[in-house]
Amino acid sequence: MTSIAILGSGRVGRVLATGLAAAGHTVTIGTLDPTREAAAWADTSVAVATHAEATEAAEVIVNALPGDVSVDVLRGLTTYLEKKVLIDVANATERGPDGMPGTLCYPDGSLAEELQHALPTTHVVKTLNTMVYSVMAAPATLTTPGTVFLSGDDPTAKSTTTALLTDLGWHPDRIIDLGDITTARAPEAFALLIGPLFRALNARAFALGIDHSA
Amino acid sequence: MTSIAILGSGRVGRVLATGLAAAGHTVTIGTLDPTREAAAWADTSVAVATHAEATEAAEVIVNALPGDVSVDVLRGLTTYLEKKVLIDVANATERGPDGMPGTLCYPDGSLAEELQHALPTTHVVKTLNTMVYSVMAAPATLTTPGTVFLSGDDPTAKSTTTALLTDLGWHPDRIIDLGDITTARAPEAFALLIGPLFRALNARAFALGIDHSA
Repeated sequence: MTSIAILGSGRVGRVLATGLAAAGHTVTIGTLDPTREAAAWADTSVAVATHAEATEAAEVIVNALPGDVSVDVLRGLTTYLEKKVLIDVANATERGPDGMPGTLCYPDGSLAEELQHALPTTHVVKTLNTMVYSVMAAPATLTTPGTVFLSGDDPTAKSTTTALLTDLGWHPDRIIDLGDITTARAPEAFALLIGPLFRALNARAFALGIDHSA
Repeated sequence: MTSIAILGSGRVGRVLATGLAAAGHTVTIGTLDPTREAAAWADTSVAVATHAEATEAAEVIVNALPGDVSVDVLRGLTTYLEKKVLIDVANATERGPDGMPGTLCYPDGSLAEELQHALPTTHVVKTLNTMVYSVMAAPATLTTPGTVFLSGDDPTAKSTTTALLTDLGWHPDRIIDLGDITTARAPEAFALLIGPLFRALNARAFALGIDHSA
């Protein structure tokens, strides 16, 4: 059982909080307005607190904040993040005119690298950002399984993350460790596919996958 | 039967020339040194010519040149490319120290957009660049099928490309039209995954796929 803070109470944060709590973990959602958010979790095991309170109390922190503000918000939590695992699931894009992700905030790099640079003693792992949010905690909803990628510099942090992904229903065969934190660049570019895929596919749930020979 | 020029005699060009010739098309490889290349195709239906000769004679041109020189080479063929379909399968990256694709040449855009801008009367379609070259003409080698994406501004050019993809063995269900030429940005970022995937996977053949709900 791990003590987990989910920062962000949007759709991504709610799906992950529900999934990780169902797996038996101690989950606290960190949000700007805990009073308002608390009602949604009244009959559950999920606690609600401020970003700082949730981060301070947790062993593992999940960044489910909007990607374009993540660096600023998390830098303000530096003290509480020291030597902890930060699982970054956000996509850093400017919002397009149609409400879909537009251009990348860090086209020459990635949000994950920016976070690791801003928080040098924190172990950042990028994962889960290559799929529609509903799939993150329910991979079996797809006709064929997608792939979940890991990027990060710390092997122990990636092991911790892998265990949590397994709890969310991801089969180990579908988890690919891409390497260090710089490998987050390609998965982060998936954000540019979200709008075109919603327009092209007759499906509301999809994920990137790597299909390979036996 | 379509008259097709394949520009580039590397591994990608050779796989596509073989596959398209096997499907009954008239294929000419355009290369810098036709005399040297001709020996490899002596007993086949594939012809070999200069870039200019091959392009002038073809209805459809495939760009299988290195991505970092494609704009310069193709701009020199402008006259022969007018009003024709240009299928761009290249990835534009600087070569990394390990020989794998390194950083993107056009991180704020894409090679496909650069080509369309340089050749305004040519109908550029981006496709096939999200897989190892061997898969392009043999998708059935994968345990589960990958996805092939299309990006381009001209619907007729995309229909022509779709027909050729079908000839190469791609099932229509696995072809996704992402939209206009700007949608090539996300598939082009796949190039950054190639090195990490070769290191991570115990497989020499792989492709990007979109897995979705029924």
